[in-house]
Amino acid sequence: MIRKLFRNARITTPIDRGIPLSGSKQGDVQVFERGALYCLNGTIKNVGTEEEVFASLSPGEVNQEIDCRGLCLIPGFVDPHTHMCFTVPREEEFLMRLQGADYLEILQQGGGILSSVRAVRAASDEELFSATLKHALSALRLGTTTLEIKSGYGLNTTTELRMLQTIDRVGRETPLDVVATFLGAHAIAEEYAHDPGGYAELVIEEMIPAVAKQGIARFCDVFCEEGIFPLAESRRILEAAKGAGLEIKMHTDEIHDPGASALAAELQATSADHLLAAGEENLQAMAARGVIGVLLPATAYSMRKGYAPARKMVEMGLPLALATDCNPGSSYTESMPFVIGLAVYNMHMTVNEALVAATLNAAYALNMAETVGSLDVGKSADFLLLDGKTPAILPYRAGVSPIVKVFKRGEEVS
Amino acid sequence: MIRKLFRNARITTPIDRGIPLSGSKQGDVQVFERGALYCLNGTIKNVGTEEEVFASLSPGEVNQEIDCRGLCLIPGFVDPHTHMCFTVPREEEFLMRLQGADYLEILQQGGGILSSVRAVRAASDEELFSATLKHALSALRLGTTTLEIKSGYGLNTTTELRMLQTIDRVGRETPLDVVATFLGAHAIAEEYAHDPGGYAELVIEEMIPAVAKQGIARFCDVFCEEGIFPLAESRRILEAAKGAGLEIKMHTDEIHDPGASALAAELQATSADHLLAAGEENLQAMAARGVIGVLLPATAYSMRKGYAPARKMVEMGLPLALATDCNPGSSYTESMPFVIGLAVYNMHMTVNEALVAATLNAAYALNMAETVGSLDVGKSADFLLLDGKTPAILPYRAGVSPIVKVFKRGEEVS
Ligand SMILES: [Zn+2]
Ligand SMILES: [Zn+2]
Repeated sequence: MIRKLFRNARITTPIDRGIPLSGSKQGDVQVFERGALYCLNGTIKNVGTEEEVFASLSPGEVNQEIDCRGLCLIPGFVDPHTHMCFTVPREEEFLMRLQGADYLEILQQGGGILSSVRAVRAASDEELFSATLKHALSALRLGTTTLEIKSGYGLNTTTELRMLQTIDRVGRETPLDVVATFLGAHAIAEEYAHDPGGYAELVIEEMIPAVAKQGIARFCDVFCEEGIFPLAESRRILEAAKGAGLEIKMHTDEIHDPGASALAAELQATSADHLLAAGEENLQAMAARGVIGVLLPATAYSMRKGYAPARKMVEMGLPLALATDCNPGSSYTESMPFVIGLAVYNMHMTVNEALVAATLNAAYALNMAETVGSLDVGKSADFLLLDGKTPAILPYRAGVSPIVKVFKRGEEVS
Repeated sequence: MIRKLFRNARITTPIDRGIPLSGSKQGDVQVFERGALYCLNGTIKNVGTEEEVFASLSPGEVNQEIDCRGLCLIPGFVDPHTHMCFTVPREEEFLMRLQGADYLEILQQGGGILSSVRAVRAASDEELFSATLKHALSALRLGTTTLEIKSGYGLNTTTELRMLQTIDRVGRETPLDVVATFLGAHAIAEEYAHDPGGYAELVIEEMIPAVAKQGIARFCDVFCEEGIFPLAESRRILEAAKGAGLEIKMHTDEIHDPGASALAAELQATSADHLLAAGEENLQAMAARGVIGVLLPATAYSMRKGYAPARKMVEMGLPLALATDCNPGSSYTESMPFVIGLAVYNMHMTVNEALVAATLNAAYALNMAETVGSLDVGKSADFLLLDGKTPAILPYRAGVSPIVKVFKRGEEVS
């Protein structure tokens, strides 16, 4: 039995009341100025002020005591939206983009997602694994302890399944908790360029049953957007996924507003992500049906586009999470500290709202809040030590990570 | 004799023609797709294509050969404007600022710079050194190999001299080349709150002679701004500094436009820094007199203010450099990769323009271009290996450093 006591830490943790935090509670945190965290075999047994935690311990109960003097202790980050399973970065396309080419233009020229698809299809299992591992370990060093990774650079059944196996292997061979999402409906495969409906049929008839049988993916996601997967098709794909026992997520309203966020509300998706162009009514519907809004400010930054109206969303009572969207096309970053900085500086979230969005609400966006996302008894002892007094150090250290140490299940992993 | 050959690298370096690069030449770089760099005792002896460099070597001449396969090689960054000699971060004030308090407001309440002054005056030599060292080593890990550090949190003769000694010690005890700048005219010392003119007299009559005698500072800088050091006083301080043999720099037009940039042009300062509010005519005057514009986009980011009009400045032929402005009040970052990202994304500089601004032109902004800032024969072998094909990887990796290794004088230092 490994019994570890982390003491003398300034602890800040979201308050988990069993539902995502929203509205005036989006930034609800508990602070222990001189706090302690007690773990047994990687699970949190107690957290609170030093007095409270010390009083609950029997003499000789603790094996190991770690003094966190001068450091701030917060939950590990949960990154609920990434596409980091890819092999080849796209630097040349990045330069094209800086010169003004837009996403749909690049896509139509066979670049963008489809160039990543060609590279992933051509890669060996080892190449795909080592490239993904590199990104996952970068995320871990930057404080992410629970990580979603999507497929979607396969766009045929074999390669989609191979991506999900790779994502699963990253979870088994690193300390990270990895959640796999099937995103066969990421783009129309090149072979189906002249028959997009045929590709959607392939996703529904062949891929979803195969993915369900494989048993790795927890979620099915759809890139719902006019000209890619229109509303009606997105609905059919998501309904098929639900029928096969998958939970659902959506890429909504990144470019236009085809009512994708309304569909997310109607189908009670776990989350709807991006939300750059969502109308107010649709956001209200999402809030009413318990759909979490996942905002991706690093994508706005990298694409030099507008940011999602986070303040308005908070005021409307929509629970918000934050994610990196790590991908080679529109957001090549694994850094949740950077995303928190953008949320605070450029979306005007408060520090505590952004912290909750990057931990507890992000855990809810993965249906993982029972085990991660806050420092509560019974959850995994996933936490970070920061070189600062409070989580404000995260945005305050612009472009630099203030993370000193990363712990997963009570073990120092970075 | 240590003879090192770095080969098989994709090399990009600014072209040093003996003057700062500006206008259509702001982004002038040379690229060797399969390049080599040959160093003798830390000095560059040859750089070019592998063929060229190999042909120049005698058999057995090389002691050590380093294969840089898959990596991009660029000069180390020169950060020409920092205030990283301070002891206590200002997290609480950061939160005030997020809630809308402005710089002059915080200053008038005895916060801001003056709280750092109190902390630095109270710190021991060791405390001040170790705090500064921590920031300098963070800069080094992020690719900065030549670093300017200003005094200016002393505001009395003893403490200003002590800061300069500390800055000098950082240069002696780390691999970094450190350039010290005397910034006694950073703010009005508390004791002179009701006699700002008296403080300026102290700077002129007592500090400048003492600083010149001490012989550490290379530059004298002034925070020229209405209500702090107005134009006439700034002029007197800078003239006194020049008379004492110091080179000069200016903080110009950060908040209002009192014509500080015109003064920088008139006095032929080495650089004028910030330039958020400078008028076109003054920028023209700077360009005509060879004054370098040092832009500090991380400050704009952290202060949620507008960015300097870099594109217009490039078009006007003003040579631009980039710096972190690392300080606890308005830009708590040591990251030149982050600054380059902001320059590209938010100031619309091209990748090569930003690279030149962060290396060669920054070296000119410190009068150090004879020894650093580009990969030229005779200069110090200061360079970085990046995990990417070209320097575009720097902005492409938003919020994450792509630096794999840092070399100073041919030695791996991070
Ligand atoms: Zn996405
Ligand atoms: Zn400054």
